[in-house]
Amino acid sequence: MNVIEDVQQHWQTQVIEAFTQVVKAPYGELLSIGRLSHTINDPLTLQLMVEHLSQTPQGRQAFQERPHLGEVKLQQLHQLPKNTLGYLYADHLIRNEFTPIPAYHEDNDYSFLSAHISETHDIWHVVTGCDTTKAGEIELAAFYAAQLSASRFWLAMLSKNLLKTAVEDIELCELHLDALSRGWLKGKEAKPLFGLQWNTLWETPLENLRTQLNLAL
Amino acid sequence: MNVIEDVQQHWQTQVIEAFTQVVKAPYGELLSIGRLSHTINDPLTLQLMVEHLSQTPQGRQAFQERPHLGEVKLQQLHQLPKNTLGYLYADHLIRNEFTPIPAYHEDNDYSFLSAHISETHDIWHVVTGCDTTKAGEIELAAFYAAQLSASRFWLAMLSKNLLKTAVEDIELCELHLDALSRGWLKGKEAKPLFGLQWNTLWETPLENLRTQLNLAL
Repeated sequence: MNVIEDVQQHWQTQVIEAFTQVVKAPYGELLSIGRLSHTINDPLTLQLMVEHLSQTPQGRQAFQERPHLGEVKLQQLHQLPKNTLGYLYADHLIRNEFTPIPAYHEDNDYSFLSAHISETHDIWHVVTGCDTTKAGEIELAAFYAAQLSASRFWLAMLSKNLLKTAVEDIELCELHLDALSRGWLKGKEAKPLFGLQWNTLWETPLENLRTQLNLAL
Repeated sequence: MNVIEDVQQHWQTQVIEAFTQVVKAPYGELLSIGRLSHTINDPLTLQLMVEHLSQTPQGRQAFQERPHLGEVKLQQLHQLPKNTLGYLYADHLIRNEFTPIPAYHEDNDYSFLSAHISETHDIWHVVTGCDTTKAGEIELAAFYAAQLSASRFWLAMLSKNLLKTAVEDIELCELHLDALSRGWLKGKEAKPLFGLQWNTLWETPLENLRTQLNLAL
């Protein structure tokens, strides 16, 4: 075995180890998910994703300008008309007792990619209409896999969800595979969500946004 | 932890161990796949599948009569007209240098279920139009998941294929998720394949069979 194969083998072993930890953890347990993300998103993987996402003008611009959500004033957004993205996003967070995911300092394309995906995750939930049930998370994971392309992390998350369904929730098999297929097809049909400057869209009615993004449900 | 939880936990640990062996093995490595199948198909799982499959008259009849493929005379089938199931099945085996999977002695519903699925696997390949590439196997695995319902084994195989795609073949991500979605939707739309007495259908043109089974491609 040569050095490159050896490194590859070592990485694969670490990924499989991190993967089994996520399988054994309860759904949404962030520590093990963070470890999997950190392990699987090696520089080459991130580079592939940056290259893919830079193929559209919107993606290229995002890597140049690195848009931030900025501070999210939940109560203020919750005063907007009830059909707007801002209201529905705030309402989604409040109902689920979530807080906005804080933005990190980004000094390169890779850290921007991670930070942008994290801080916009709940916006993607709202815009795609995926709820926070297991099936909703699976649908959104498949949507990410389609939109980010070549995303080892989201593929591994889908794999994890199918294995957990097999060993823990076999009665949800149909619901989960329906969700996976729907999310994948929706993600391929929709316009790219990555790189949108979401904080300029708070006052836009969600239905208009969905129509613009080919996401009409 | 009570005794039932303890047994459940032990089973899950064994399944995850068997799963990681299949992930680490090359595609189609039968020893590790057999071990996963043996581990994940515990009596309760098999009982669930037997119950599900017995909901149709065809399935019920299959468990009563336990149809066998019987001896498959490849060269003889290969003399049939080129549009028949028999010719196309023999041709599929010959081209892939496969031999028919021998039938085992079945003395109960569970062993019949396993034997029937094994010995008809390549017929399902031909009838569904799934080839033997990685994508073809994924499409067929999703088709099985839809048709057999509550199949922990096929869900685990899908999970395995997505994880292998993530760590070994990320450039095949789109092809593989397309295949999974297609197989799942096709399996839900098609009439049940389980329990058909395939050896009475060798002379039937494949296209007619596909039409009867809602499998027109």
